[in-house]
Amino acid sequence: MIKVGIVGGTGYTGAELLRLFAQHPQAEVTLLTSRKEAGTRADAMFPHLRGYTDLEFSAPDPEALAACDAVFFATPHGTAMAMAPALVERGIKVIDLSADFRLRDTATFKQWYKLDHATPALLSEAVYGLPEVHREAIRQARIVGNPGCYPTSVQLGLLPLLEAGAIERDGIVADCKSGVSGAGRELKLGSMFTEAYDSFKAYGAAGHRHLPEIRQGLADIAGAEVGLTFVPHLLPLIRGIHSTIYARLTRDDVDLQALYASRYADEPFVDVAPAGDHPETRGVRGGNTCRIAVHLAPDRRTVIVLSVIDNLVKGASGQAVQNFNLMFGLDERAGLQAPPLAP
Amino acid sequence: MIKVGIVGGTGYTGAELLRLFAQHPQAEVTLLTSRKEAGTRADAMFPHLRGYTDLEFSAPDPEALAACDAVFFATPHGTAMAMAPALVERGIKVIDLSADFRLRDTATFKQWYKLDHATPALLSEAVYGLPEVHREAIRQARIVGNPGCYPTSVQLGLLPLLEAGAIERDGIVADCKSGVSGAGRELKLGSMFTEAYDSFKAYGAAGHRHLPEIRQGLADIAGAEVGLTFVPHLLPLIRGIHSTIYARLTRDDVDLQALYASRYADEPFVDVAPAGDHPETRGVRGGNTCRIAVHLAPDRRTVIVLSVIDNLVKGASGQAVQNFNLMFGLDERAGLQAPPLAP
Amino acid sequence: MIKVGIVGGTGYTGAELLRLFAQHPQAEVTLLTSRKEAGTRADAMFPHLRGYTDLEFSAPDPEALAACDAVFFATPHGTAMAMAPALVERGIKVIDLSADFRLRDTATFKQWYKLDHATPALLSEAVYGLPEVHREAIRQARIVGNPGCYPTSVQLGLLPLLEAGAIERDGIVADCKSGVSGAGRELKLGSMFTEAYDSFKAYGAAGHRHLPEIRQGLADIAGAEVGLTFVPHLLPLIRGIHSTIYARLTRDDVDLQALYASRYADEPFVDVAPAGDHPETRGVRGGNTCRIAVHLAPDRRTVIVLSVIDNLVKGASGQAVQNFNLMFGLDERAGLQAPPLAP
Amino acid sequence: MIKVGIVGGTGYTGAELLRLFAQHPQAEVTLLTSRKEAGTRADAMFPHLRGYTDLEFSAPDPEALAACDAVFFATPHGTAMAMAPALVERGIKVIDLSADFRLRDTATFKQWYKLDHATPALLSEAVYGLPEVHREAIRQARIVGNPGCYPTSVQLGLLPLLEAGAIERDGIVADCKSGVSGAGRELKLGSMFTEAYDSFKAYGAAGHRHLPEIRQGLADIAGAEVGLTFVPHLLPLIRGIHSTIYARLTRDDVDLQALYASRYADEPFVDVAPAGDHPETRGVRGGNTCRIAVHLAPDRRTVIVLSVIDNLVKGASGQAVQNFNLMFGLDERAGLQAPPLAP
Repeated sequence: MIKVGIVGGTGYTGAELLRLFAQHPQAEVTLLTSRKEAGTRADAMFPHLRGYTDLEFSAPDPEALAACDAVFFATPHGTAMAMAPALVERGIKVIDLSADFRLRDTATFKQWYKLDHATPALLSEAVYGLPEVHREAIRQARIVGNPGCYPTSVQLGLLPLLEAGAIERDGIVADCKSGVSGAGRELKLGSMFTEAYDSFKAYGAAGHRHLPEIRQGLADIAGAEVGLTFVPHLLPLIRGIHSTIYARLTRDDVDLQALYASRYADEPFVDVAPAGDHPETRGVRGGNTCRIAVHLAPDRRTVIVLSVIDNLVKGASGQAVQNFNLMFGLDERAGLQAPPLAP
Repeated sequence: MIKVGIVGGTGYTGAELLRLFAQHPQAEVTLLTSRKEAGTRADAMFPHLRGYTDLEFSAPDPEALAACDAVFFATPHGTAMAMAPALVERGIKVIDLSADFRLRDTATFKQWYKLDHATPALLSEAVYGLPEVHREAIRQARIVGNPGCYPTSVQLGLLPLLEAGAIERDGIVADCKSGVSGAGRELKLGSMFTEAYDSFKAYGAAGHRHLPEIRQGLADIAGAEVGLTFVPHLLPLIRGIHSTIYARLTRDDVDLQALYASRYADEPFVDVAPAGDHPETRGVRGGNTCRIAVHLAPDRRTVIVLSVIDNLVKGASGQAVQNFNLMFGLDERAGLQAPPLAP
Repeated sequence: MIKVGIVGGTGYTGAELLRLFAQHPQAEVTLLTSRKEAGTRADAMFPHLRGYTDLEFSAPDPEALAACDAVFFATPHGTAMAMAPALVERGIKVIDLSADFRLRDTATFKQWYKLDHATPALLSEAVYGLPEVHREAIRQARIVGNPGCYPTSVQLGLLPLLEAGAIERDGIVADCKSGVSGAGRELKLGSMFTEAYDSFKAYGAAGHRHLPEIRQGLADIAGAEVGLTFVPHLLPLIRGIHSTIYARLTRDDVDLQALYASRYADEPFVDVAPAGDHPETRGVRGGNTCRIAVHLAPDRRTVIVLSVIDNLVKGASGQAVQNFNLMFGLDERAGLQAPPLAP
Repeated sequence: MIKVGIVGGTGYTGAELLRLFAQHPQAEVTLLTSRKEAGTRADAMFPHLRGYTDLEFSAPDPEALAACDAVFFATPHGTAMAMAPALVERGIKVIDLSADFRLRDTATFKQWYKLDHATPALLSEAVYGLPEVHREAIRQARIVGNPGCYPTSVQLGLLPLLEAGAIERDGIVADCKSGVSGAGRELKLGSMFTEAYDSFKAYGAAGHRHLPEIRQGLADIAGAEVGLTFVPHLLPLIRGIHSTIYARLTRDDVDLQALYASRYADEPFVDVAPAGDHPETRGVRGGNTCRIAVHLAPDRRTVIVLSVIDNLVKGASGQAVQNFNLMFGLDERAGLQAPPLAP
């Protein structure tokens, strides 16, 4: 079995890695670190995992980490860039779920995350972990920057249109809605039940950290800058991102359904919904699938893309496992094959 | 006391009229009709109204209705256009919460509602009940077509920009989200708890009944056709509409905050949120307020409008009471002054 | 207008007092204190109150408080007992929503709240603010200890049975369920959306602070000790307590429905539901009503009482306003007459 | 692969069987019937199963059913008792998720389900499918009556106490709360989102169909009649039952934690929570586990049992698969090993 370490496993993405690896036939989590919770059993904190793990959290220890074959960082930004270089140097593959290895431009990183990047060299080597775009590079990578949740959903939604040059590269709108688990497990007033239940709101309308990541990814895909307005919203549910994306077609002969079906025909984790469908977030709850529907607006010029994921799975830990599978030459679907849970 | 009749009071908008009139100092509901529930007490069906009404439903009877001073239709489309002419003729003021008297064009009405309009003459006389645009006409009206919920939220959101000619009249996007009560009290699979809870989806992306109503209203405001893409979504909550509206500015010297503050300074039921704010639907839950925030996107060319209402109040029954107040020369706020309920 | 001060108005009960007093015809809130939020406008923190208050929080100041006619404490335990004596001495009526003036026995208070009581003399004078039991004493009181939410619901549920001697005074079970707002506005992991949504659990099964308060109140009513098992549970909703109470009848000739109807006939805020009814928490959402249904179990010996309140209203701030009205000789219902909000 | 047929697969338990068998290593669903939905693909109705099944619904056909090795009935009561005899006769194993084969007494069945039992002989042969009590008989059974959701949770909660004779057999209270999915997928007003969200209520306080099933099961366990009051409640969540059970201890020397730990030590799907724990319904969401905690009330005489299951899994389809595994001599856990989904 491949030995996996998780740094910072007390958040929701850490717990989700434990859940997914519990079903992985070729890997097992052997180390789980948390300075604060050292000595606590993981299943005391996450009772749904009772019977699936005997691990307890331990304080992060370089030697223990070095005994792993792969290390996942499920930490706030700033941690992975400090700890990853030593691990990579020792031949341990690193998958970082934080933002540390996503943005290639260190100035942009500093602007949004208020930190100087600690390891620009390793950053320039890191591969952006969106398999649908960078599969081969991920296979070779020593370190992967796992994409953010909104960026995954928006990039997969626009990918076929941009690759085909079928839309104007300016004036795109991404109206995105996320469940509360996307805000993490830290205590924040806005994440309290009584504050978020039975209500809905936008946030970050004037600018959000994920915008530069989305724009970098879209520019990579399109081979040119892409002008996009992105507004995130907070949904009163736990798991799920729904991106509604609006763009202007450049020509009127595009068979949208065929374009998407063809582009994603071989992708194990992108499902193009039947024509006319409106995918629900619950349809991918707990699964690693990104489900996409594409509509033509009544004006026949505006294309509407509906792209849904589970933010904790394809938007975080599931995609991280997918990247792990690629990095170790395994079946890309290993550990990710259980059906979503609905209703 | 002004005597009020409600036709079809078994739905949520009917119950909401009862709740609001229970607090109205100058009017009282004296008649409540339902063919199906004749004989049932209203508070047996809506226990939150125990102690606030002694009415029971009765089968609709023309003479009993004619004894009212005003009649509200809280019915599916098709009913009001059949019953309203006789009432109007006898001098009874009519407020129709259905779609029968909203669309001036009968062909468009037929296209979306699959009915020939029964009374085009009365339709052409009817006033569209959006007080912020048609206040004086409402004061004189014999019959008011009460706006739909999405149209209220979108029109109030765009009104200052269109009046000021500050945005391009094409390429507007209205990404709208509504609570489940907007789907009414009829039994439908998609309105079931187990289907709608903990999930989110779009619907009607290829076309929705409210689109022609929105476009008609915006054209009235702008004095010209307006190109708009409208996608409604279903929120897992009961009350609330949040419209996120995207438009392109035509010039860069607009003080957006001042524009909105000035346009709505004297409006009792439109509240311009402080600059930078993101209004929550719960902030207007149970109240007749439309709260609007306006943001400039990072590209400095796209304006983002966030417009929230309670779909059962400003989006239906509250706006109907507001129109009633105007038609009877009362304080526009009568019966509508209780604060929203949050958390 | 009677001048009202609120100490500690940044929690949900403070916000609820503001909402209720906004509808009170004879009183207004003139002072709102919070050390931490001094300078913040109340409606910036609670946007649903925009247009209903211009107050900002100020640091608590004895002279400013002394200028009020009444002071409400919406603070954690420990504050009111420190500040109340000086206010009472100066003739200001005090209503304490915390636990400081509920338990007559200071040893019990210390056991559960880990504090020595600072003012036993004032405690012994304080009246327990359950109007259905202590109305006349409340009218004369200088200081009222406002009941806890669970205790209100359980006491009102058992009152007619205990007064009538119709049940065994031992072996009573109160299985109580509360919405998350009952846990207050402080940041706690268990109150996070992602922790509480779509889930349900008991807590405090081995003992809870409200048990001694319930037992004291029931003993007052029964004139003897009452044996009761109380288990609170956390409901995934914001407002509402539902107590399901089980007791053994001592005789088989009791007309339960008549007993409750007669006992509560003149109570403005207790509503006995029709026979066979199962009251919903939403039926009292935002209202000051306690709605009670009483059932006989199939064994014909066990009586089942269903008692629902809004924990923030009849379980806290609404009952506090009711007590205020009694203390000032006003109509007991002043400020409390708006219908509940449903759906 | 063992060939499995599902009769009436359009409800939630049918969908759940599909989800579970998608993960089963030795069986596959080969037939899915629905008269009404014949021709519809299962994954069109249940999009979370896209990629996991290619089946479409077909009208029930005796020959097609006879080609299966096992048939599950996920139908309303009345169907299985009509169709099962012919299948059993042909050697096909039957697992009935409806109530048809649960109650041994046909008079009781008729009283609650308003039907004469069609096949008393087969009924008397049927085994009650609670593996923790009847494992060996299930292994030999030709037909299993799969237990109801509430009965599963209550029986497993009381089993160790009754077997040990540690509680009084009278005066037991089972206060049970269920998610809305327990009411099935048929359209009912009380199951509508707007009716059930943000609210809580009891139902059936004066009597519920599951009471005779619970009492029959408890009597089997105790070897004598058991007096129990059972009140079900509707939780505003989808999956989950939480039973809070109160009983009186007959002696004071019982080590409750040890009693439960020992009784369930070898049970693969009953998890005794650590002492002092309060299990959450989400901890078993999607899993086949019944998690139980046991507490002693402050009076030291009342035992409080907290028993949680997922009503669609251990309360229905998961337990049915568990019974299937037993009937076919497979690993009891086959298809049931994925961890629950939380948060």
